[in-house]
Amino acid sequence: MGAISKEGLDIANKSREIVRNKIKEVLGDEIKFNEKEMGIIERVVHATADPEYAKLLVFKNNPIEEGIKAIKEGKPIVVDVNMIKAGIRYNNVYCFISHPDVYEIAKKEGITRAVASMRLAKDYIDGGVVVIGNSPTALFEVIRLIKEECIKPKLVVGVPVGFVQASESKEALRKVEIPSISTIGPKGGTPVAVAIINGIIAYAKDKRA
Amino acid sequence: MGAISKEGLDIANKSREIVRNKIKEVLGDEIKFNEKEMGIIERVVHATADPEYAKLLVFKNNPIEEGIKAIKEGKPIVVDVNMIKAGIRYNNVYCFISHPDVYEIAKKEGITRAVASMRLAKDYIDGGVVVIGNSPTALFEVIRLIKEECIKPKLVVGVPVGFVQASESKEALRKVEIPSISTIGPKGGTPVAVAIINGIIAYAKDKRA
Repeated sequence: MGAISKEGLDIANKSREIVRNKIKEVLGDEIKFNEKEMGIIERVVHATADPEYAKLLVFKNNPIEEGIKAIKEGKPIVVDVNMIKAGIRYNNVYCFISHPDVYEIAKKEGITRAVASMRLAKDYIDGGVVVIGNSPTALFEVIRLIKEECIKPKLVVGVPVGFVQASESKEALRKVEIPSISTIGPKGGTPVAVAIINGIIAYAKDKRA
Repeated sequence: MGAISKEGLDIANKSREIVRNKIKEVLGDEIKFNEKEMGIIERVVHATADPEYAKLLVFKNNPIEEGIKAIKEGKPIVVDVNMIKAGIRYNNVYCFISHPDVYEIAKKEGITRAVASMRLAKDYIDGGVVVIGNSPTALFEVIRLIKEECIKPKLVVGVPVGFVQASESKEALRKVEIPSISTIGPKGGTPVAVAIINGIIAYAKDKRA
């Protein structure tokens, strides 16, 4: 995971082993995930030190393979907050939350900046990848774009965090016929989002190598 | 928390209320925190949707007041990863993890990039604020700088995440006579780090206003 020193690699390897055992404890005999999905789950538990995520992650409509394809084709990734952009190992990433137009639109229309930022990113979302780790309203807006404006993202990673609307937004995402990765309940957040998409980017690179 | 629309503010307010109740459930009657500490705890639980943090956060040597003072004086903040830099609402923030010298030093000396980045930031750390949300080795290096090179940060926010060395690094931090905020156990991470330091920055601004 970006480690170049022996110490860095040792920590990463030892951590991966512990993470695998913790996941086994949580999942017991009910492991219903394939190898690639397990790899993503491991990254999330590694990033959060919270094994509960093994029970919370949901993969719908072949999201990993669709994501790998999109990344290999160099499709854009649209994210809701700059922290996610800073964490993604990929060049073609867009975050409009601090765009001057977003402030204008949000104020004028009385919507959240997160919603305005997704509306502004519409053309990148269509045929691209969406990664939301913070804002439920951004995820609801992406779902609206899919349903009402026929926008078709290749993959939506929807893991907004929080006790208000986050669970509901992710439930709504799982009802849409789009490849998606999400979490059940209020948990989620930027490290979860980054772990998932960096995992998919790593898969896309390994296949090339 | 940066919300400008009515919807954004409503979500923030409702969330804060739920967060307070969840924290009460976790802490029960044993609330031993002052008002400013509770504000920081609320931000962390808000950022992670994980009320357990109310039991994990440790404030040592008057860290919030020392942090507020440092921010008001415009002292630099040194962080371990760019995700944290992207999340902090402050101008004077340094992250050297991707600095070309850091790659060189890490390779040559067989240390992690995180350690090399702290070594390179030494002059900023002395009299500044350190925020570590990812790398235990970075935190161990800061502790070494304090003990062996008489470097004196005004505040160390040490919340690296993970099952290898993270707990130990935070325990070591709590043994040093420096203002610090840390978590017990493997949990932590970039959103926890950002929530804590943005809370302190907010306190510093309110006092000015």
